Amino acid sequence: MAKRLGEQTIKIDNPVSIINTASVVGPKEGQGPLARYFDVVLDDILHGCESWEKAESKIVETALNKVIEKADLSSRDIDIIIAGDLLDQNTGSTFGVMHLNRPFWGIFSACSNIGQAMSIGALTIDSGAAEKIIAGASSHFCSAEKQFRTPLELGNQRAPTSTWTVTGSGCTILSNSQDGPFITHATVGKIVDFGVVDAANMGAAMAPAAADTIAAHFRDTRREPSYYDLIITGDLGYIGRELAFRLMGDKGYQLDDTYTDCGIKIFDKAKQDTHSGGSGCACSAVTFAGYLFNALKEQTLNKILFVPTGALLSPTSSQQGQSIPGIAHAVAIENTR
Amino acid sequence: MAKRLGEQTIKIDNPVSIINTASVVGPKEGQGPLARYFDVVLDDILHGCESWEKAESKIVETALNKVIEKADLSSRDIDIIIAGDLLDQNTGSTFGVMHLNRPFWGIFSACSNIGQAMSIGALTIDSGAAEKIIAGASSHFCSAEKQFRTPLELGNQRAPTSTWTVTGSGCTILSNSQDGPFITHATVGKIVDFGVVDAANMGAAMAPAAADTIAAHFRDTRREPSYYDLIITGDLGYIGRELAFRLMGDKGYQLDDTYTDCGIKIFDKAKQDTHSGGSGCACSAVTFAGYLFNALKEQTLNKILFVPTGALLSPTSSQQGQSIPGIAHAVAIENTR
Repeated sequence: MAKRLGEQTIKIDNPVSIINTASVVGPKEGQGPLARYFDVVLDDILHGCESWEKAESKIVETALNKVIEKADLSSRDIDIIIAGDLLDQNTGSTFGVMHLNRPFWGIFSACSNIGQAMSIGALTIDSGAAEKIIAGASSHFCSAEKQFRTPLELGNQRAPTSTWTVTGSGCTILSNSQDGPFITHATVGKIVDFGVVDAANMGAAMAPAAADTIAAHFRDTRREPSYYDLIITGDLGYIGRELAFRLMGDKGYQLDDTYTDCGIKIFDKAKQDTHSGGSGCACSAVTFAGYLFNALKEQTLNKILFVPTGALLSPTSSQQGQSIPGIAHAVAIENTR
Repeated sequence: MAKRLGEQTIKIDNPVSIINTASVVGPKEGQGPLARYFDVVLDDILHGCESWEKAESKIVETALNKVIEKADLSSRDIDIIIAGDLLDQNTGSTFGVMHLNRPFWGIFSACSNIGQAMSIGALTIDSGAAEKIIAGASSHFCSAEKQFRTPLELGNQRAPTSTWTVTGSGCTILSNSQDGPFITHATVGKIVDFGVVDAANMGAAMAPAAADTIAAHFRDTRREPSYYDLIITGDLGYIGRELAFRLMGDKGYQLDDTYTDCGIKIFDKAKQDTHSGGSGCACSAVTFAGYLFNALKEQTLNKILFVPTGALLSPTSSQQGQSIPGIAHAVAIENTR
């Protein structure tokens, strides 16, 4: 049985283990500081396809097959796949998942998808309704730029506050196995809107939601920031991380250097021209599936609070003058229960 | 604890009750045969807003507040809201849910959203992680036509196979109360693709998925079609219902007149010029929240299999020559457990 703690947190009581992960990334991510942790680094951002959207779906399919292979399973062993992306009507996931012929729940919380997928997946395993679930998320730099910003061919200059959408897919297999790391808590985010309207500053749009969810997690669990070896948000980048850090201070939680962001870890700011850092659903998904899962398995990290962050805009909502609300879903992952 | 039955079905073991529902619909739905079951019938399809997208979000907000009021609760009593729609990046739900300031899971399985929301919600209540969850879905005729088809101002003629997107939002409150009706089973759909590419014939695109999920439900639960007082798909309309009926026959399940479709129930074919029937996330959501919930409470129906259906396309996937895969999520709702 799961248990509710406070207003937003679910305590997972039965063991829910992350038994394996897989990450597939594009060429740029393969030149970044986390390159050695990724399972597949593509040398072709189209992955042999004729469009960026089809490439994203093929990346999803590659990651799904990879994680099943790494766990020495067959696709029939997977009870449910939970996945989401940024493309209109979740087509990155749909056309990537469909050939696996498994029960499927599509989700949308923008770049916090992997956090929501892991939360629902953990709960489903805990309930006894499934034994093995894949939780995954994806994004693609080119399909995201085309959809949310300007045609790549225009060669627009990027704002210093902008982030670089990560190309890739990160998948995790959750199971009722007794071996860690375990998902122990999930804090379900609320939509938080500070009225940011600048689509070239997603870090600022999402930072209030990140701080809101992290503070709720500490309030609900009665844990302190020092409990965790690492607190890592999803894709706030440098600017958003700084804002979340300050907002947490205002809420009475003094974070320190154990708080960072996947968008800071995934690219080399000096060499890769990515301005405020990495973003996109894949930013947190592949950083977790690659770097963080490895650190948990090697026990260089034993307790992490993983907080994927999402900006809940569409091109239409922005064109109609709406602000950019944010959301963040926190998942506590620990080597011992 | 929940339990897995067969390949796709979750048996909900703890009581998960639908304690209340609310439905808000547009003017056309208010002239249809189910009018008397809806809580709010708008006389303005813009609901006082300046755009169809903003109207859809306001309809969502109206339905959420209505269901909370009808259940004599306050928004703080709701542990999680689960909702989805058809708009790019789920903005119909986002901007409708945000003012309630509750933990939120956005989902996307197109017009099967209410089925997926009720499934995840039921599981979450069963697990003990929440006491009250709102599961909801919405769509809007004008925002859907604009996004998926042609500008309304063009006055295009509609194909005879086309369906009419329902304007509205249907919400349910799920709870661990001991009073029925109860959600007893959820059968999680697989993506099924028969290669249909005609975006003016969604019924044909979704019928194979509906038949696949209904057959899986019977296989997994060892129930026969005759177990249910009513089997009702989401938005196949007349053409899709006929196809699903035949496909079920091919699978060895002879359905009869106890099988119908929400898209058939919601409009008067002869008088309302809706061709193959109703569609959209709201089609199944408001038909359930209005007509079906009423019939369960009045015990004119005691056992229903509710099977919302979704077409997993985007304008981009269609423009790139992809087919229209379908999905269907079945929920068994019964007055006794």
